[in-house]
Amino acid sequence: MADKPAIPKGTRDFNPTESVRRNYIFDTVKRVFTLYGYAPIETPAMENLSTLLGKYGAEGDKLLFKILNSGDFLAGMDHREVTSSSANVAALKICEKGLRYDLTVPFARFVVQHQHELVFPFKRYQLQPVWRADRPQRGRYREFFQCDVDVVGSDSLLYELELLQIVDEVFKSFDTKVCIYINHRKILSGIAEMIGRTDLLTDITAAMDKLDRIGWEGVETELIARGLGQDAVEKVRPILLFRGGTEEKIALITQCLAGSATGMAGIEELKTLFEWIRQAGIGQEVVLDLSLARGLNYYTGAIFEVKALDYEMGSICGGGRYDNLTGIFGLPGISGVGISFGADRIYDVLLGLDKFPASTAHAPKVLFMNLGREESVFALSMLKQLRSSGIAGELYPEQVKMKKQFDYADKRGIPYVAIIGEGELKQAKVSLKELKQGQQQMLTPDELKKYLEKE
Amino acid sequence: MADKPAIPKGTRDFNPTESVRRNYIFDTVKRVFTLYGYAPIETPAMENLSTLLGKYGAEGDKLLFKILNSGDFLAGMDHREVTSSSANVAALKICEKGLRYDLTVPFARFVVQHQHELVFPFKRYQLQPVWRADRPQRGRYREFFQCDVDVVGSDSLLYELELLQIVDEVFKSFDTKVCIYINHRKILSGIAEMIGRTDLLTDITAAMDKLDRIGWEGVETELIARGLGQDAVEKVRPILLFRGGTEEKIALITQCLAGSATGMAGIEELKTLFEWIRQAGIGQEVVLDLSLARGLNYYTGAIFEVKALDYEMGSICGGGRYDNLTGIFGLPGISGVGISFGADRIYDVLLGLDKFPASTAHAPKVLFMNLGREESVFALSMLKQLRSSGIAGELYPEQVKMKKQFDYADKRGIPYVAIIGEGELKQAKVSLKELKQGQQQMLTPDELKKYLEKE
Repeated sequence: MADKPAIPKGTRDFNPTESVRRNYIFDTVKRVFTLYGYAPIETPAMENLSTLLGKYGAEGDKLLFKILNSGDFLAGMDHREVTSSSANVAALKICEKGLRYDLTVPFARFVVQHQHELVFPFKRYQLQPVWRADRPQRGRYREFFQCDVDVVGSDSLLYELELLQIVDEVFKSFDTKVCIYINHRKILSGIAEMIGRTDLLTDITAAMDKLDRIGWEGVETELIARGLGQDAVEKVRPILLFRGGTEEKIALITQCLAGSATGMAGIEELKTLFEWIRQAGIGQEVVLDLSLARGLNYYTGAIFEVKALDYEMGSICGGGRYDNLTGIFGLPGISGVGISFGADRIYDVLLGLDKFPASTAHAPKVLFMNLGREESVFALSMLKQLRSSGIAGELYPEQVKMKKQFDYADKRGIPYVAIIGEGELKQAKVSLKELKQGQQQMLTPDELKKYLEKE
Repeated sequence: MADKPAIPKGTRDFNPTESVRRNYIFDTVKRVFTLYGYAPIETPAMENLSTLLGKYGAEGDKLLFKILNSGDFLAGMDHREVTSSSANVAALKICEKGLRYDLTVPFARFVVQHQHELVFPFKRYQLQPVWRADRPQRGRYREFFQCDVDVVGSDSLLYELELLQIVDEVFKSFDTKVCIYINHRKILSGIAEMIGRTDLLTDITAAMDKLDRIGWEGVETELIARGLGQDAVEKVRPILLFRGGTEEKIALITQCLAGSATGMAGIEELKTLFEWIRQAGIGQEVVLDLSLARGLNYYTGAIFEVKALDYEMGSICGGGRYDNLTGIFGLPGISGVGISFGADRIYDVLLGLDKFPASTAHAPKVLFMNLGREESVFALSMLKQLRSSGIAGELYPEQVKMKKQFDYADKRGIPYVAIIGEGELKQAKVSLKELKQGQQQMLTPDELKKYLEKE
């Protein structure tokens, strides 16, 4: 007897219910992306390690899944070379490829590699899985999907607006209220200037990024540990924790950052963006959040994060503008802005709020009972008609007791059962039984089609 | 300057045109699978090597992509253990996981692992990439998509019929004529019995599977190399090369295999299946092909292969019945039948026959020129209306020369350009220009929507 089969820890199987709901999320974001003129691309699961290494920090390098070279991977190698090295060094001698860690670096690689075939501004979306050798824990998986939408090749703020409109429209489609938090990296740079510690900008944003998890006191402790003085912390605290409307916040930082050209440039951009947002009529709540940092180093302009209003969950969507993402692959000066939808978390939010529509049931609408050979031929002809009208249905495969056939319909959640017995066959009709209420009616094939089309 | 970025050999990037066309293929098969009551599942890209090894023969084992254990993969290991072994043995000491090689074995693993949560007969489809460390060559990739549809838990021939109906419907949707070739493993067993070499059944089918590539003479040479006598070859030749209609072929083998109970059982099943096919009104050509073998060992009943009629290409779809696929994971006696659509080959066929519909263009329908701030606000409000009617459109992000904006529309293949200048703004209208013919007309927002909806 074989061992009970299992899958690697941190990975998941998705059953039909889960898969159909996931597809609903993917189809919805794809539909909205398309309405805004974005087109899909796909990149391979495997990238050369030279593409991936050094792009996610030392910690990220460790989390890359590496693929053993095929064939005789030890060939032509002094074996001690492998085994006397540290695991990290040894891995690079026997692995040339790795699984992609996110969609951003492959996208940058794609843009540089195909730059002469692309039309700029290049608007793309990409929905693919990524892999990270993270320690698996609740809500953190080693394989998960990212849904990224980006445009590169223009620094127009209209694209920031467009992405926010997309966020608005996606969550409107999900019938889910969210709050969009916005900040600007140049404002954070201005704050770092103001306290005379531009050298610590990365540390400041990394610490602030943990605000949700560790609270302001935790951030302060971390800021000080990262080298900020107590006086600097005192200076930034009132800005980052300031409560008020967007206009009041802008007034406050305009005053605080008056001496920083960078800071003022960020403020100007945000003012324009908020004006666009008002004029475009974005329906979701939009908030200027001066404490929003987003940990990733490559952001240089506006940054965004989205949270559900009626369900406790971290950020379900985030992004921002980056000015030099393709520079790492030798194509500098291409500005871009993008946003990433977290499919797993959105799934949990929609499930928690009971927002998956009935159309995400995966059972067909009708099961035809199998009551004999001739009856089945009639059933098949009716199924053909129904399917040509887009109604899903099937014939039970064996002529067994009706109870067993009803049980199957019930367990699969098929709402209607169609019965063709001798009597029905003679009249060329079908008895349709609705399983929940138990109503039954006799219909002609045409009536059946019309009835199920309406339901 | 960084090296020119590249992707691993045998893998591919898909640009927007290719991705949209691929999605058209995936969406079409998914729609048809759903109409027949099949529901999606997904399994992880990585499986434990214990799940994958030994399932695809020694050759297959070598073609598995293995994933290096994360962390210190050499820890607690006598390094000589690794380096003194052959590459194959060494790999297993440092790799526990591999990328899936097909969707069939993961499906069998899924069914066994989740058997108590599933409703049988269990009808599932699965569209996911698979990976093989094959030597890359024209038309053979190291990463490619499989589209599998299977039902397990019933031996009813109605499921063979259902899958053939699905094939019929899928290619009708693609507006592509195909021929479905059918044979039965029990007939092949009967032939092996007839020549007294049941021991060579696997060799016989493996050799016959190459008929397309090496011709009948090549098959004969291989049959003899695999141990078949010349007299046996003489006996099977007239059967396998017999030309005639289905009824004549059935008459021939009924005569030849009269002494084989297994063979006769296969003939009976095919007779029933062909009768069902006739009654269900399958529109595509269906042929009994006594030389069809399909190399995979696990088939035990009817087997299928599909080829395009108007385009030279190998098999674009294939499958069959297997009686014991889940047995390898400890759940014997579950009969199933399935079919797999080769997305890459179908892509090439549709491209070659020019069958991709216009809806697979990926550009939005209309580009609004950017002629100033106020004009853009008006454009945004119109775009909002259009999108709510499902019409994709976008606003050019910068107020630059009209020529540049027209060029962008042209290069992206956007068919309409909407112009809002001072004059249009005053009248709250828009000038719509069709780029190919150059016609231009002035429309109200409502007229614009109606016009583009119709086009």
